Amino acid sequence: MKIFVVNAGSSSLKYQLIDMENEQMLCKGLCERIGVSGVITHKAADGRVYTAETLMPTHSEAFEAVVYALTESEAKVIDSFDEISAIGHRTVQGGVDFTNSCLITSEVIEKMREWSVLAPLHNPANILGIEACIKTFGKDIPQVAVFDTAFHQTMEPKAYMYALPYRYYEQYKIRKYGFHGTSHRFVGGRAQELLGKEHSKIITCHLGNGCSITAIKDGKCVDTSMGLTPLDGFMMGTRSGTLDPSAITYIAEKENLSPADVDRIVNKESGVYGISGVSNDNRDVEAAANAGNERAKLAIDMQRYQILKFIGSYIAAMNGVDAIVFTGGIGENDSKLREYVCDNLKFVGVEIDKEKNAVRGKEIKISTNNSKVSVYIIPTNEELAIARDTLEIISK
Amino acid sequence: MKIFVVNAGSSSLKYQLIDMENEQMLCKGLCERIGVSGVITHKAADGRVYTAETLMPTHSEAFEAVVYALTESEAKVIDSFDEISAIGHRTVQGGVDFTNSCLITSEVIEKMREWSVLAPLHNPANILGIEACIKTFGKDIPQVAVFDTAFHQTMEPKAYMYALPYRYYEQYKIRKYGFHGTSHRFVGGRAQELLGKEHSKIITCHLGNGCSITAIKDGKCVDTSMGLTPLDGFMMGTRSGTLDPSAITYIAEKENLSPADVDRIVNKESGVYGISGVSNDNRDVEAAANAGNERAKLAIDMQRYQILKFIGSYIAAMNGVDAIVFTGGIGENDSKLREYVCDNLKFVGVEIDKEKNAVRGKEIKISTNNSKVSVYIIPTNEELAIARDTLEIISK
Repeated sequence: MKIFVVNAGSSSLKYQLIDMENEQMLCKGLCERIGVSGVITHKAADGRVYTAETLMPTHSEAFEAVVYALTESEAKVIDSFDEISAIGHRTVQGGVDFTNSCLITSEVIEKMREWSVLAPLHNPANILGIEACIKTFGKDIPQVAVFDTAFHQTMEPKAYMYALPYRYYEQYKIRKYGFHGTSHRFVGGRAQELLGKEHSKIITCHLGNGCSITAIKDGKCVDTSMGLTPLDGFMMGTRSGTLDPSAITYIAEKENLSPADVDRIVNKESGVYGISGVSNDNRDVEAAANAGNERAKLAIDMQRYQILKFIGSYIAAMNGVDAIVFTGGIGENDSKLREYVCDNLKFVGVEIDKEKNAVRGKEIKISTNNSKVSVYIIPTNEELAIARDTLEIISK
Repeated sequence: MKIFVVNAGSSSLKYQLIDMENEQMLCKGLCERIGVSGVITHKAADGRVYTAETLMPTHSEAFEAVVYALTESEAKVIDSFDEISAIGHRTVQGGVDFTNSCLITSEVIEKMREWSVLAPLHNPANILGIEACIKTFGKDIPQVAVFDTAFHQTMEPKAYMYALPYRYYEQYKIRKYGFHGTSHRFVGGRAQELLGKEHSKIITCHLGNGCSITAIKDGKCVDTSMGLTPLDGFMMGTRSGTLDPSAITYIAEKENLSPADVDRIVNKESGVYGISGVSNDNRDVEAAANAGNERAKLAIDMQRYQILKFIGSYIAAMNGVDAIVFTGGIGENDSKLREYVCDNLKFVGVEIDKEKNAVRGKEIKISTNNSKVSVYIIPTNEELAIARDTLEIISK
């Protein structure tokens, strides 16, 4: 059985086709510049590549280009789209209405539209993707929505509420929702399998250009660092993370900034990039730090320190920890970050094997046998998680 | 030797007279409504009280009223102000210029004035108090400034920088300064004495209407929860603590709020009061929670949980902890808060004696002999700390 996984942005479309017999990715691709011009890059798992420029006024034409790539191009992987059993969509903000993935109906789309107020860039794009799929592939193929927020819906109010006047929660639904839920659930679930115990306290660190950390107790999210938006938590590539609100109002007052200006600054001009002035990519920043750039070194030091403190806070939130998982581009590849964090967690008995910690690109337990806490690198695979959910739902 | 301790607000003046032979407070008092009308409440340590309404157009007249109270009223404690050797001032924002308390000179006042941009309510009031003292008592009596921020100046950049564009640090000195430094230093120093070891990792929790937590390693502050302003950190009586900046811009956009409006909301209408809708006083809120008020219960739960997480983050920041200190109105009196926090720190071997934890109003070690971490209640005494600094400086 083959599942088609879609991640629709406002002018882009990422996809993968996954064979669920062996959970192998058959191909993946990306349509870009939708609405402007249009280009597709399609790669089969065996290395064949197909790229083309083709007009994509809407997501529908992008899907038509994808169908051609999948079934007719020099990098085709199937003979007909009919071989595909279901479509799984990465969807961002499900608010309090979606605690799990679900079959997409007109009611689901309506709810997603309602939650667009809190995800004005993402939800409308996800809906565009879903509606274009219906238009291109018809209503008979089942489609499933897998929300970034769903896994975090088990948080208690003490964890998800902000200490603002209560009316903002009632009127505008201002609270912590959390994101990257599909990734945290995927790597957290895998860590629980590896631990092999029913009751577990796991901290999952999804560290990429966007970063979040989640505390998972007995398989359920108890707290997570991202909040109302994916800006909350600790510093990321270009995002500030949480701040003294007075820092915001002080700058806004001084420079006569609108809320939109502030949003741009804290989302696009801050974080590792804002401090280092070098790049939003940790590899560039670390190279600059090694070459003696003091601000680059500061950016790296700050981010590692903030990650360490978040892990510490979640150890306290769960009164202990059995496993810590690193995933995402930085989490999977930055051995120095992992070493710094783990060396500073000796107080709970973390001990890592430096040789194992140097291994890249595969699942590995990097803690020693003496370590009281298991530390893993687990490459995340959100597409597979989406495909699994989709399969599970259509099998019911 | 007697030291006069002053805490000047914009329309108020708190003072204590302390005999440094035995570190006993001789009297304390408060002048209120300075600039409006004027009232003094003066209490001698033996219970005698003097109150009077007397016109106080400026802080100078307030000090004249204080001199009368000290030397001539029915609650007089000395015969002449000449018996006083020095004056110690509580001063708020010393920025990066003051890493210790210091003798006040015209240069010091000038520096304080420069830092007023970051403490527009506090520094000018502190300066008013100092200048009125000079006017009333002359230039011969030494005056010492004890800054709230000084103790935190040992933080490293990785702890004090916000991940905003670096230019804001350069242009506006936007960074974490920390507050309550005199209190953290006082109770942290006492905890170090009680621990009796040279190298120590101590977490001090100053929990009052304003709240902050500090990580102290070998006697030096390594991190603290308050930041650019006393709003940062976790939720307090009416303050939100740190937030997802998007929550701020979202509300500002929706309700067309100015930076000043936002400041008012997050400083005066949020925190325990904003969530509970009951009060900014934890005692009232806990009573309401016990009577079944769900929002009051939520406010209490949130604050305790946030305190726990901050402590966890600082344990990680220091890679362990030897002692935890509770101080301030809530810290010294709220046994349930301490119990919740300590019960959730079993992962580092915290164990408290519930009977000792029920003791109120005095210094006590509440951890058991088996506890791997010493937990203390240490009543804070900022006035004594100011007097000690003053004595030390004038003795040089």
